[in-house]
Amino acid sequence: MLFFVGLGLYGADDVSVRGMSLIRDANYIYLEGYTSLLMGASPDMLSKRYQKPIHVLGREDVEIHPDTLIKQAKTHNVVFLTGGDPMVSTTHADLRIRAAQEGVQTEIIHGASISSAVCGLSGLQNYRFGKSCSIPFPYRNWMPRTPVDTIEQNRTHDLHTLVYLDIQPKRYMQIHEAIDILITLYETADPPLCMPELYIGIARAGSDEPEVYAGNLAQILSHDFGSPLHILIVPASLHHIEQEYLMTFAHLLP
Amino acid sequence: MLFFVGLGLYGADDVSVRGMSLIRDANYIYLEGYTSLLMGASPDMLSKRYQKPIHVLGREDVEIHPDTLIKQAKTHNVVFLTGGDPMVSTTHADLRIRAAQEGVQTEIIHGASISSAVCGLSGLQNYRFGKSCSIPFPYRNWMPRTPVDTIEQNRTHDLHTLVYLDIQPKRYMQIHEAIDILITLYETADPPLCMPELYIGIARAGSDEPEVYAGNLAQILSHDFGSPLHILIVPASLHHIEQEYLMTFAHLLP
Repeated sequence: MLFFVGLGLYGADDVSVRGMSLIRDANYIYLEGYTSLLMGASPDMLSKRYQKPIHVLGREDVEIHPDTLIKQAKTHNVVFLTGGDPMVSTTHADLRIRAAQEGVQTEIIHGASISSAVCGLSGLQNYRFGKSCSIPFPYRNWMPRTPVDTIEQNRTHDLHTLVYLDIQPKRYMQIHEAIDILITLYETADPPLCMPELYIGIARAGSDEPEVYAGNLAQILSHDFGSPLHILIVPASLHHIEQEYLMTFAHLLP
Repeated sequence: MLFFVGLGLYGADDVSVRGMSLIRDANYIYLEGYTSLLMGASPDMLSKRYQKPIHVLGREDVEIHPDTLIKQAKTHNVVFLTGGDPMVSTTHADLRIRAAQEGVQTEIIHGASISSAVCGLSGLQNYRFGKSCSIPFPYRNWMPRTPVDTIEQNRTHDLHTLVYLDIQPKRYMQIHEAIDILITLYETADPPLCMPELYIGIARAGSDEPEVYAGNLAQILSHDFGSPLHILIVPASLHHIEQEYLMTFAHLLP
């Protein structure tokens, strides 16, 4: 059997009790090491916590050579660990399909995900978010216009936008880098576009010291969010409670 | 200190290890009993699992009379339990604001949420969802048109729609009831609208036997989803992997 277990957001104890129990009973433990990361727990720390060896998998292991893992799952209990909630990434969906084609039973053990955690941390209501988008690191000065298209489309409908920031090996995009990219994209828009007035930055969601800060361009650029991971929200108009929440927990000025 | 702890989706062991540890160390345990529910764990079962008494709170206790809870949190460790991920509901945001105004420190312990769980269960990719909506039980034959507006707005942008179904005391809307309401809303639209072709129903997300089924109107209406909770997705066009996933895990016909 193959269990896809979500590890949650930050530390080794953010997995569910049920997930931890499956990990402890598992014959083989694999950790997906390329789309998501627990900043509060290295593979070594997880291995010590579980008192078991962990095999860290690269993208090729999962996408091209998952044969060993699938074969083991035919006769043993195998857990496949990912940060957040499993299956958000297409490569995991593909792995589950391949396993099923080989006759392997699969089950998903859900974990806390950044996509809902941002609601609690910012006080912005879930049903007021539109489509999300992501900002990749520029490649030879080229950057896709998708983030601005998505933000503007959502603003037209008075919807908040959750903006995922790029995660590369040992390089995590910070909020001020994302804002710099947005400034460039808005400045070069044709026809010209006005930038949104308010931004909410969140760092280290799921840890016991998350940083949540709401402000205008100048304020957010000069705020020190500290260590990664970072994520950004571009809010639409604020409802009364959303505004009060941000004033109370995110330094928003009246 | 006041900890908002998310219980996750279904059973008593869907809370995080960190959340469970805070519950076991807490002086007072409150369970929010009106916006979300664990179908796999009654308050009695939770109380036995924690080996501690639980106080179940109604809406009035939280919205109008949270004074006792807040007072206790000034000198003791209090946990406030909710299904899913905390703070998705405005009333909890308001409680956290009130606590802060009284000088009480607060922290959020995140839990798995249906909003991300549907991605893993259906294989639909997170970034392809637009705004979500909900269908309430009709009140004297009146039903809001919002669900159709949202679904159609999302379809215009080729985005999936997550449709929450009403949860009332001892009455949980089922998928076929939601579909019946959608049929009425589409039939009475002015100008007339064509209904979407494909629907995905999900029952008992987070349990070890979730039911996921994708089909057209006739198929979904005749499918038996079993016991609650139910939720519905109205997908936009399907990407290749999304389609293959639904064919493999949700009975979608080619």
